Amino acid sequence: MELNKKDNILIVGLGLIGGSYAKALKNKGFCVSAIDTDRDTVGYARKMKIADYVTDKVETDLIAKSNLIIFALYPHIFVDWIKEYGNLISYGTIITDVTGVKGIITEKIQSMLPNGVEFIAAHPMAGKEHLGIENSDPNIFCGANYLVVPTKKNTENAIQFCKSLGETLGFSNIAVLSTEEHDNMIAFLSQLTHCIAVSLMCADDNEHLSEFTGDSFRDLTRIADINDEMWSGLFLDNKEALLFQMEKYRSAFDELFGYIKNNDRNGIRNMMKISSKRRQIFNKKEE
Amino acid sequence: MELNKKDNILIVGLGLIGGSYAKALKNKGFCVSAIDTDRDTVGYARKMKIADYVTDKVETDLIAKSNLIIFALYPHIFVDWIKEYGNLISYGTIITDVTGVKGIITEKIQSMLPNGVEFIAAHPMAGKEHLGIENSDPNIFCGANYLVVPTKKNTENAIQFCKSLGETLGFSNIAVLSTEEHDNMIAFLSQLTHCIAVSLMCADDNEHLSEFTGDSFRDLTRIADINDEMWSGLFLDNKEALLFQMEKYRSAFDELFGYIKNNDRNGIRNMMKISSKRRQIFNKKEE
Repeated sequence: MELNKKDNILIVGLGLIGGSYAKALKNKGFCVSAIDTDRDTVGYARKMKIADYVTDKVETDLIAKSNLIIFALYPHIFVDWIKEYGNLISYGTIITDVTGVKGIITEKIQSMLPNGVEFIAAHPMAGKEHLGIENSDPNIFCGANYLVVPTKKNTENAIQFCKSLGETLGFSNIAVLSTEEHDNMIAFLSQLTHCIAVSLMCADDNEHLSEFTGDSFRDLTRIADINDEMWSGLFLDNKEALLFQMEKYRSAFDELFGYIKNNDRNGIRNMMKISSKRRQIFNKKEE
Repeated sequence: MELNKKDNILIVGLGLIGGSYAKALKNKGFCVSAIDTDRDTVGYARKMKIADYVTDKVETDLIAKSNLIIFALYPHIFVDWIKEYGNLISYGTIITDVTGVKGIITEKIQSMLPNGVEFIAAHPMAGKEHLGIENSDPNIFCGANYLVVPTKKNTENAIQFCKSLGETLGFSNIAVLSTEEHDNMIAFLSQLTHCIAVSLMCADDNEHLSEFTGDSFRDLTRIADINDEMWSGLFLDNKEALLFQMEKYRSAFDELFGYIKNNDRNGIRNMMKISSKRRQIFNKKEE
């Protein structure tokens, strides 16, 4: 099953990602409606014609007629929404999401849905430092990864449908991962990197550093200007996986610290050789 | 005193930085000679007319007639060179360098030079992952910082001369720091960031990670593809300052780890707020 021009698509939550989804789908000629509780956001979305229909209310008819609903909300708000309005969703509807953690929500959502409504979890690995609909941009999906994260409850049909959504949005690579694989991987690749950048910025209070910095520090700390509400939630929602990855990383850091302390140049060089070899695989993918 | 078109400039060592210096100075109309012991490098430099005169030998006349000599060598090779050939340098000559550590070489070099020859240390904070003259490019200095690192033995004259060299090369910002300030700052901004990137790449051997990664991990590990000969030397040459900065950073990382472990969301958010505020100062400088 593929995404079809006859589908009635509803996006719940018009932030950076929801807004970018709406723009990408409208650009491709799909019919898109959207709900956001913030009136300024709704006003902006209407003015900029980001979707065909935009409302700040949960309208029964709108929910009922939609056969693909995309939730672009913080994880706990998503769970609360389903608890309150899940019964309004029609039989046969597929729902998906954009949240960065899965273990804490996927099975909970799946267990709450009415019969005949299927939730297939997805994670678009794209973003910007600055959130909000004003920064929404469908081009952020180009070159990015789209992760489909099914459980045993999901049908092959919904997995294919979700993949076709990722393709339509313009993602360059689409992968299927289990919930556990996803949360471990995201803990390592995304959350740990944000922990590192934040720690590095907190380690030194010298305001003059920015006068002397080179590109390496700038690149490493770009993500240190961080939305603390969203990210603190993501960290705690994926706590076990994140603590595990933080410990693994700290072991490697401590190993390097030991080699430097003991003047063990071969130890340092061996770590650098492993690091270089692994990083070169990423370079190839970038070309 | 400023750099003058009548100056005879000699560059010793035509790697990425030496080659980029030669190109930048030639572009501005200066007369540049160069020495490199590698015949392929010399052949390439001659073919590409990177300097007006290029040789693979330490020629007595060439050294004697040069009144500005720039050493673009690894620190220990620089020290060995001065030990062997320092006596060939003429009275009144200013010599400078490009090395990334200062404490271990500056006073040593200054104490070995013949009377009337002054060494003023400098550090161009510019580079590329891939070294060698083939990658040399004077545009890497644009937007970058040039650090002049005098000791008490240096004259105001040589400091001004060195600053004018940085300006001529096209650096966007020129600063003067003491040896100790320089080595601490470089340990934090440059060496620690490389330690972090190397540790992160060594922490996980999953080859499939590159399929799922987002921009934050790519940016953070760009420098993990690292020249292990050069960087292991730089780490050990600045060992005390680097270990100190590594410990400071690890304390901040452990603090964040503790907040996550204890579900202390306010603790996490406070660190993120500090981090964001500090990183925003860097953003302003980037604009």
